[in-house]
Formats: sequence, structure tokens, C-alpha cells
Amino acid sequence: MGIWNEKDISMRGLEELRNCDVVFAEGYTGRMQEGSLKRLEALIGKKIIILPREEVEEEKRILNEAVSKKVALLVPGDPMISTTHISLKLSAEKMGMETKVVHSSSIITAAIGECGLQVYKLGKPCTLAIWSKGYEPTSSYDVIVDNIERGLHSVVFLDLKGRCMEASEAIEQLLRIDKSRQRLKGLSAVVLSRVGSKEQKITYGKADALLKANLGKAPFILVIPGKLHFVEEEALQRFAI
Amino acid sequence: MGIWNEKDISMRGLEELRNCDVVFAEGYTGRMQEGSLKRLEALIGKKIIILPREEVEEEKRILNEAVSKKVALLVPGDPMISTTHISLKLSAEKMGMETKVVHSSSIITAAIGECGLQVYKLGKPCTLAIWSKGYEPTSSYDVIVDNIERGLHSVVFLDLKGRCMEASEAIEQLLRIDKSRQRLKGLSAVVLSRVGSKEQKITYGKADALLKANLGKAPFILVIPGKLHFVEEEALQRFAI
Repeated sequence: MGIWNEKDISMRGLEELRNCDVVFAEGYTGRMQEGSLKRLEALIGKKIIILPREEVEEEKRILNEAVSKKVALLVPGDPMISTTHISLKLSAEKMGMETKVVHSSSIITAAIGECGLQVYKLGKPCTLAIWSKGYEPTSSYDVIVDNIERGLHSVVFLDLKGRCMEASEAIEQLLRIDKSRQRLKGLSAVVLSRVGSKEQKITYGKADALLKANLGKAPFILVIPGKLHFVEEEALQRFAI
Repeated sequence: MGIWNEKDISMRGLEELRNCDVVFAEGYTGRMQEGSLKRLEALIGKKIIILPREEVEEEKRILNEAVSKKVALLVPGDPMISTTHISLKLSAEKMGMETKVVHSSSIITAAIGECGLQVYKLGKPCTLAIWSKGYEPTSSYDVIVDNIERGLHSVVFLDLKGRCMEASEAIEQLLRIDKSRQRLKGLSAVVLSRVGSKEQKITYGKADALLKANLGKAPFILVIPGKLHFVEEEALQRFAI
């Protein structure tokens, strides 16, 4: 489905959807603009059935339909980002079904591009999880430190489980981990709000300054810059606070 | 423009093109299917002016038109992958022009997804250049070694300067560097031909086996897998020779 709403679907995607018998959608690996599926239904002239996470992971409902019908599963962003999608494709192929992925815009390259950073310096991406009692993972902190040490940019996804994580929450989490680890001294970050939309907002600055700024609305993604080329530096200065 | 042909443009992109006064295109940062621009011209009902690399880099022709008209620059893949595009956007903004990027599918996430590999294990991308007398860069070899040591997957672009580099040429180049460096013993690679097209062909195997196989037609991209999760391993086995 691409990064923001129904208009981010490619013409190839639209054509495939119009030729499908059944159209499912999942909305838990990414968030599209509210109303996107309703408007897409009007465009393709058929109902879209939204599946909860469990039904996508169980695969049964999708595969059962696909035995005799042409079935689509709509996925936010560029598909195949999650193991679930890969497993589903493998299962369908094992059952002798023909499968096809229609690609679209991904938040990974879109975020880097909107910042004006070079995709050649993209490091391993990571995700910050919403912490809860007894669940306070810190592995993404290590990924960011490792990327910075190698001069690479980090694309940091924010948790979507249940609710969208706030950008300030993500920055506070990184600062909290940094209190004991001390590897990200003077952390600077780019906060991207609603990439690809008319309300897109990008803010660049030191962590403490970001916490005081209006960063826009969820969904967010963070980019932690690595070593900057002068054109990258100039590009980022447009968003500096 | 997305990864393969005019159908990979999003509906948002098509709408913008229809509202433009002048449509330029560059074709040197990526290769679209032959005839894509001709078919796109028919879809948007206007001429597309193809600019050589120098004219995109000089910026003058594009910016001069944009002073008084709504101008688009069509770029293969997801735009902003090259410093030239970022510079152009910065120049336009300095002149007080409103700019907008319409995102589309990128070969980076598409290649990883088609392989069935996890985007969370994507390492720094790199490019293999066509060697000539006195120009035999080896830095991409180091990037691949570094990614493998971290368990990360490498997306390896093949040179497009003048002609599309052949996949076998790329593998031979890696093997040649490895003769002296010896860091990629038993190198396995995934060769992807024409990703996103009907002729898409993916081949996975040891470097020496790949050199004997029919790998499809250019344009190619390579993926060098890092540490494999069992679902990734299963996904790759579909393409094993």
C-alpha cells in the first residue's frame, strides 16, 4: 500500500486489486491514514476485509480462500517487511499457488530521502518497543551506537503495538538507557511525523531540544544521523531547531 | 517511478504528473523497462523530456523552467537516492520554490523482500563499479565483509555507467578481490534479474555455481546473505541451484 494512504498504491497494485476476487488487509505492521481503506474500496469497487494479527499469522483464512479464488493481502509500506508475510508466501507456494508481490514505497528509503541523507550510508534498522513492567529491551540502543561508530545512519521504527509510540517517548527511552551506558553523548536525532502526507513534519536537533519542541503527530519514525557529508548537513539544517 | 515500468508509479505520482506543466526524466541512476516513458507519456497526455546526466547535475534547465511552471523530474526507483537529487531540491528551496517528493518502490526493500530476507538485517548497501585500466575500486568488498561479520545482508548495486554490469562480471570481480583478501571464503550470493517484472529471475548459490548458471538478463542486483533465520533459509532454498 505504500507509506501514507490509498494514493500511494501503484497503478500495478490497483490493477491487481481490480482483478482480485477477495481483498484482505492487515493494519498491524504499519499505520495508513485513517479512511485509506474506505477510499480504496471505492476505487476498486469491492469490499476490503480487515484481518486481525492472529488471522494473518494463522494463514488459514487467507489460504482457504486462495484455493479457488484470486486473493490479495494489502500490507502497509513495501510488503514482506515481516516474517509473517514471508511465511504466508511460502505456505501458498507449498500448496502450489502462484504468488506475486506488488511493491510500493517503503518508510525506510522515504525517511532517508526526506531527510536528504544518503541511502548508501544506511545502517541496520531497528525498532524501539513501548516499555512495560519487566519488558524494557535495549538492543536497539546498541544497534544505533554500532551504526554511529561506523558513520552510518539509523532508521528507528517506533512501536505500533496497541498504540503508536510517541516520538518524545522514544527519545526519552534512548536518553534513559544512555544514562547508564553513556555511548550516545549529545545525541542528535531527526523526528519524522506522517511521512508522505500533507502534514509531514521533520524536526532535527539535540535530544533535549526535541523534547521541548512540537514534533507533529503519530505515526513517527526517527533517523539518527551518522557521519554527515556537507550536502547532508545542509539538507538537515532545513529542519534544525 | 518505482522499480520496473510505468505501472510502478503511484496514483499520487500520476496525479501530480497530470497537473505538471513540464515533465523531465533522468535515466542514469537506474534503468526502467524499455518503452516505460513512451507509455507514461500516453497515460499523462504530455511529452516527457529526457535529460542527460550533465543537465540534471547543472540544475539550470530544470530550475529555469520551475521559476514560472510546475515541473516534475522523474527518477527511477524511490527518488533522492543520489546526492544530485538532494542538491537539486535544496537549490529549488533556496530559490523559494515549493518542492515535493512522491515516493515509490525502491529496489533496496524490493530485493530483500523478493528474496524473503528480513529488512531488519539489512546492512550498509554498496555498488560494484565496472573496472577499467587504473580504476579497480575494492571498497564494496570491504562493506560486504563487514556486513557478513555482523550477520547482516548486503544489497549490492551493479554499475550502470554506460552499460549495465552483468551479474557474472560482478561475481567474478568479488572472487578476484577475494583471491588476495580471502575474507569471503565459500561466498554465496543471490542474483536478482529484472526485479518487479514478469521475467523476474532469482538465483541463489555458491559463487562458482552461479557463474555456470543462466542468471537472466540485466539489470541485475545482488544480495549477499548474512546470518540466516530458518524462515529466511527456507525462502532462499526456493532459488537454490
